[in-house]
Amino acid sequence: MDSSLVEEALKRGKARREEYPGHRYVRFCDDMRDVPRGTVVFDDTMIWGYPQIGRILSLEIGLREHYAGPFWMEEKIDGYNVRIFRHRDEILALSRGGFICPFTTDRVADLMDTGFFEEHPDVVVCAEVAGPDNPYLAVSPPFVARDVALFVFDMLRVNEPGFISLEEKHTLLARHGLPAVSHFGMFSHQDWDAIKALLARLNDEGREGVVLKSESPRVHRAKYITSSASINDIRSSMSSLHEMPAEFFVNRVLRLAFYLEEEKVADTDAYYGKLGEALLAGLFEAIEQYRATHHVYHRHCCRFRRKENAELLIDFMSHRTREMQVIPRRLEKEGEFYVLEFDKVHPGMTGLISHLLRGGLLFD
Amino acid sequence: MDSSLVEEALKRGKARREEYPGHRYVRFCDDMRDVPRGTVVFDDTMIWGYPQIGRILSLEIGLREHYAGPFWMEEKIDGYNVRIFRHRDEILALSRGGFICPFTTDRVADLMDTGFFEEHPDVVVCAEVAGPDNPYLAVSPPFVARDVALFVFDMLRVNEPGFISLEEKHTLLARHGLPAVSHFGMFSHQDWDAIKALLARLNDEGREGVVLKSESPRVHRAKYITSSASINDIRSSMSSLHEMPAEFFVNRVLRLAFYLEEEKVADTDAYYGKLGEALLAGLFEAIEQYRATHHVYHRHCCRFRRKENAELLIDFMSHRTREMQVIPRRLEKEGEFYVLEFDKVHPGMTGLISHLLRGGLLFD
Repeated sequence: MDSSLVEEALKRGKARREEYPGHRYVRFCDDMRDVPRGTVVFDDTMIWGYPQIGRILSLEIGLREHYAGPFWMEEKIDGYNVRIFRHRDEILALSRGGFICPFTTDRVADLMDTGFFEEHPDVVVCAEVAGPDNPYLAVSPPFVARDVALFVFDMLRVNEPGFISLEEKHTLLARHGLPAVSHFGMFSHQDWDAIKALLARLNDEGREGVVLKSESPRVHRAKYITSSASINDIRSSMSSLHEMPAEFFVNRVLRLAFYLEEEKVADTDAYYGKLGEALLAGLFEAIEQYRATHHVYHRHCCRFRRKENAELLIDFMSHRTREMQVIPRRLEKEGEFYVLEFDKVHPGMTGLISHLLRGGLLFD
Repeated sequence: MDSSLVEEALKRGKARREEYPGHRYVRFCDDMRDVPRGTVVFDDTMIWGYPQIGRILSLEIGLREHYAGPFWMEEKIDGYNVRIFRHRDEILALSRGGFICPFTTDRVADLMDTGFFEEHPDVVVCAEVAGPDNPYLAVSPPFVARDVALFVFDMLRVNEPGFISLEEKHTLLARHGLPAVSHFGMFSHQDWDAIKALLARLNDEGREGVVLKSESPRVHRAKYITSSASINDIRSSMSSLHEMPAEFFVNRVLRLAFYLEEEKVADTDAYYGKLGEALLAGLFEAIEQYRATHHVYHRHCCRFRRKENAELLIDFMSHRTREMQVIPRRLEKEGEFYVLEFDKVHPGMTGLISHLLRGGLLFD
């Protein structure tokens, strides 16, 4: 670990010093050279950021283009990305952006066997956390009925940027019984019919899509998203329309068009209706919610082991962005958990709907 | 006219010097204090920019909010905005942004009786030019069958920022038989049923909407757009998705949601389908066009009196933005006109579709 790199990043504003009870660390808030955003440095330990994965919109030709040889297909889960590792005697979970996540850190022992790190103290577990009772997202996969679950999809080593080989990852997952993303097996682009059938099934089941991984020469990764995921994304984000970049919506329409075009879907009319409904019904709900409560918000509920971590989460979320306002509603002991309820208010969308319903003018 | 203002604007980059055969002028490319973007200065003559007009999304309450007294309703035309005036012995037409438009300037004598300026040399005619054979827009109102037509909606005076009173405008229009936007008469917010019926008719006829104007205290203007116009806008702009700000699409979805919400439209399903179709079928067309021609473009055709003006237009459009590429296809004398055909290629959308159809990755 090159300490001059960290000094340079801090000086150039590419990295910042962060604090978390008991920890001080440096977080890369931006890419710098080969160091991705989200990379963190604790003393002499560097946890590399999880790299961005490109998305394929034309799958059949994309597979031929990117994968001359075989590739693995794993399920892509609609949750939030964490990196879990041991620092001194503590198990910490980092968000994609490199913040210590108070919620995941609190619950990690419920989500996986943390004894894993006794044997593998240098391994960083990369996983998705998903479920209805999560503090960040309004969406959740259909197969997590309550609370949250963890789905491991990759492993790194402390101080090393590259992933552990897929084979070794599978061995470690199996040996320690870690919860992992569904693994659909190895395919090649000749298996197009089987791949198509798999994706049709995932789409019908309202699941998000797949990540393609090949071992050589540089663990080439790509992702592909089902059309139902594009539509669900739009629907669940309309109430934060003003907070999201407009490209978020436009990109999903583009994905959907390429999906329908490639699949030569016959009932495009049904998709026209679904897309229009996702956009408009999502807005109707936001307007209705505003009329009823004078706010546009999403209520989150999540369970903690330790009360302080719930308070840390509220504090963390309140300071993270001006684009939302966090209003705690309830923090109570229920059985073995502290249950936290809070509203994530979208101030931009609240203000916009309020202005427009009062007959206000829009200059666009 | 305060020449120190122009000097300051030039120094601060808020204005630029422009050239057009026989003319040198200064154009405000940005708002500066009370001078709007699009204002131009020829020697000691200042033509004020056409001000931005705010849009109402909740019409019933908006009318009550903004118009205590009566207001006029005029048709809003889906074309491009020009200001026409006499400078020395020439009639010139300025674009919204303040460029002399070679097309409108060439054709102005076909579009209105320019003898008007003999009698009123200090009047600036503000109008929309619309029709299928225009050089700028892919859309055209249903009631202009061929070529283009002019629709006057306001008048200014040279060197004065405010509009001529509505009454005087009507008198001048009538006396000189100038072509004008449809004028629906005077209303007050109590006439809500009649207003609603008028807008329903405009919507059914595929027309864009209305501009509301009141005389006092500051000629308060606002506009309201029909739902069919929002949908048409989206449909006709999908082929330049990559060139347009994503907000363009999102704003129109928002307008549509407020329209449906206010009107308590019963068959929202039909609108879901129409909106989804505008988005997706627009993209399918762009993909199909790319497959057939390796470009995403719109072909424009327009008629000129003088060949040099057609060449000026091509030159003007080629230099105006990097976001489109202008490819002349034909310039031929046909009867009394020079007919120009050119393709406006969308290089961003062409590149994006090409990349995605080859299986390329998208990092978003």
